[in-house]
Amino acid sequence: LRIALLGFGAVGRRFAELLPGAYGRALRVIGLRPLLTAIGTARHGFAIDPAGLDPAECLAAVVQGGALDALHRGPRVSSASAFIRALPADVLIEVTPLDPRKGEPATSHVRAALRRGLHVVTANKGPVAFARRELQALAARLGVHFRHEGAVMDGTPIFSLLERCLPGAEVTAFRGTLNSTTSLVLSRMEAGETARAALREAQALGIAEADPSFDLDGWDAAVKVCALANTLWDAALVPAKVRRTGIAGISRLDVQRALRAGTRLRLVARAERRAGRIIASVGPERVPLEDPLAGGGSHAALAFATDLAGEIGVFQLGGTVDQTAYALLSDLVFLAASSKSTRIGRASGRRKRS
Amino acid sequence: LRIALLGFGAVGRRFAELLPGAYGRALRVIGLRPLLTAIGTARHGFAIDPAGLDPAECLAAVVQGGALDALHRGPRVSSASAFIRALPADVLIEVTPLDPRKGEPATSHVRAALRRGLHVVTANKGPVAFARRELQALAARLGVHFRHEGAVMDGTPIFSLLERCLPGAEVTAFRGTLNSTTSLVLSRMEAGETARAALREAQALGIAEADPSFDLDGWDAAVKVCALANTLWDAALVPAKVRRTGIAGISRLDVQRALRAGTRLRLVARAERRAGRIIASVGPERVPLEDPLAGGGSHAALAFATDLAGEIGVFQLGGTVDQTAYALLSDLVFLAASSKSTRIGRASGRRKRS
Repeated sequence: LRIALLGFGAVGRRFAELLPGAYGRALRVIGLRPLLTAIGTARHGFAIDPAGLDPAECLAAVVQGGALDALHRGPRVSSASAFIRALPADVLIEVTPLDPRKGEPATSHVRAALRRGLHVVTANKGPVAFARRELQALAARLGVHFRHEGAVMDGTPIFSLLERCLPGAEVTAFRGTLNSTTSLVLSRMEAGETARAALREAQALGIAEADPSFDLDGWDAAVKVCALANTLWDAALVPAKVRRTGIAGISRLDVQRALRAGTRLRLVARAERRAGRIIASVGPERVPLEDPLAGGGSHAALAFATDLAGEIGVFQLGGTVDQTAYALLSDLVFLAASSKSTRIGRASGRRKRS
Repeated sequence: LRIALLGFGAVGRRFAELLPGAYGRALRVIGLRPLLTAIGTARHGFAIDPAGLDPAECLAAVVQGGALDALHRGPRVSSASAFIRALPADVLIEVTPLDPRKGEPATSHVRAALRRGLHVVTANKGPVAFARRELQALAARLGVHFRHEGAVMDGTPIFSLLERCLPGAEVTAFRGTLNSTTSLVLSRMEAGETARAALREAQALGIAEADPSFDLDGWDAAVKVCALANTLWDAALVPAKVRRTGIAGISRLDVQRALRAGTRLRLVARAERRAGRIIASVGPERVPLEDPLAGGGSHAALAFATDLAGEIGVFQLGGTVDQTAYALLSDLVFLAASSKSTRIGRASGRRKRS
């Protein structure tokens, strides 16, 4: 399994770190020998080596602030699109920084890689929120897979649970606390801190968006609502169509008043399908203390209303970059398992014939 | 897919009710035509008809307090073991009332059906807690499946999530509020009710064990801990080996004192694997309000600590008999999907040849 990484920030690096160890073992168990053949970055250049890159060498190069180019073999590559065109890989892992307003450049990267007949795994919510239907259709046409477990709640199984664990049941609605920054900020305000101090904490933890207004104004949550709704209902909902209220107008007094009433203010993301239409919203709500959505600072929770299985849900206690990297691994295992007789097999077949 | 039901209480009846409608549709989607060929009960007799029973007729017979025998065709059957020997079925659904102290008679039923080469699906926690390793080995030897999604938290995907959604990751420990009766009782005591009144409510809701001391003394939770630990770690832990403290000694004062300290008393079931050994316990704990295990009355939650995916979990908001019946359906879909080339296919092949 020849793997290319586009994006080499915290998540990409963690993935590369674990590839020779735990992740490699998990892939070998299902009969795959992983080989990292390319890494593309905006700040550290590009490295492609069909014979395989050494993850440790790549990590050392970028940690020291240097470029990856010294590890590159073959014709020089100087843009993400040229990188994708040149990839000697079976799967592209897309983990570039996202402009959450547009879902780019991730969506373009995913599209280009699928068009080339590569499987794509991403932890980016953008492509799923802005273009899932188009990208899945493209993948299906070319017999490859597009997977995105990490788009919502890091490595917590959400998309795989919906795909594999609720046979015969339909999700009719969902609600969740999908943005950890706002949960943390509101939690800290309950304890008397200012929103500004809490936001600094979220930034220090690395859970806030690069521009934290995307968290506070509900945009990040709206993008995730679209990622979920589009996957659940094969829809084409876009974030601008989600009714959205942020938490900027919320004071410590509001938060503490809610708490005295036995509730917690949380930014709740919701969607439901009613008569074929999807109604989606993001906004602060008073959540009863005993509801799983009223979890503490960095907890995230997502509840699904179903027709046959009642209301069930999934939670995550304190996600870090480790969990997002795990989402990439789990997607690799799934696509390999479902592709054994298709793409990956065919690719090796082609190589043998040529 | 010829289905036999052993046990026709609330769960079995709900399953039979939904079989002609929603459940049948879910099975036909994957290419199976379900046929209910037998129902066995302790109080309403036995009915076997290789050509298929009408679920509505069976329901009408027992609702009126009558016997099923009038619907029976062929030689008379008068015991569960004779019933299992005579079954014209591909799969037995085992939903008899359980003696949680011994895991019987469910364990014997499952064993007998597997020995006959039938798939078995159960919502009974007993066989998984008391004999999972033996029963899985037996099923594997005979090329059939033994599935038990409903054993813990009704239809919430627990066993299927662990089996299908955490590839490459290992669960190192878990903790959960697995007994709804004690959660409800402790919840109501927070609000000032007596334990006795709360217990009556749990009985009215149908969530309490027939003998509620099995709930209050932690035995039900201990049985579920074993079901989970045995499945997760292919172990043979028995309920008597689980360190167990019930909630009988807990007063309203204790509960309210915990609440004032920002926590909730809950009966928490725990297990972890340390150096190959499993350490398991059930007992009241003060759970911080923001923890998903501190959910309200009839909520249940289960958190898994994993090596690669962090701490994640699953919750259920207010389970009823509908969700337990759904667990049976989901198991049928899974076993059909993984048996297409094995047992069910072979059985039809044999029928054609004979």
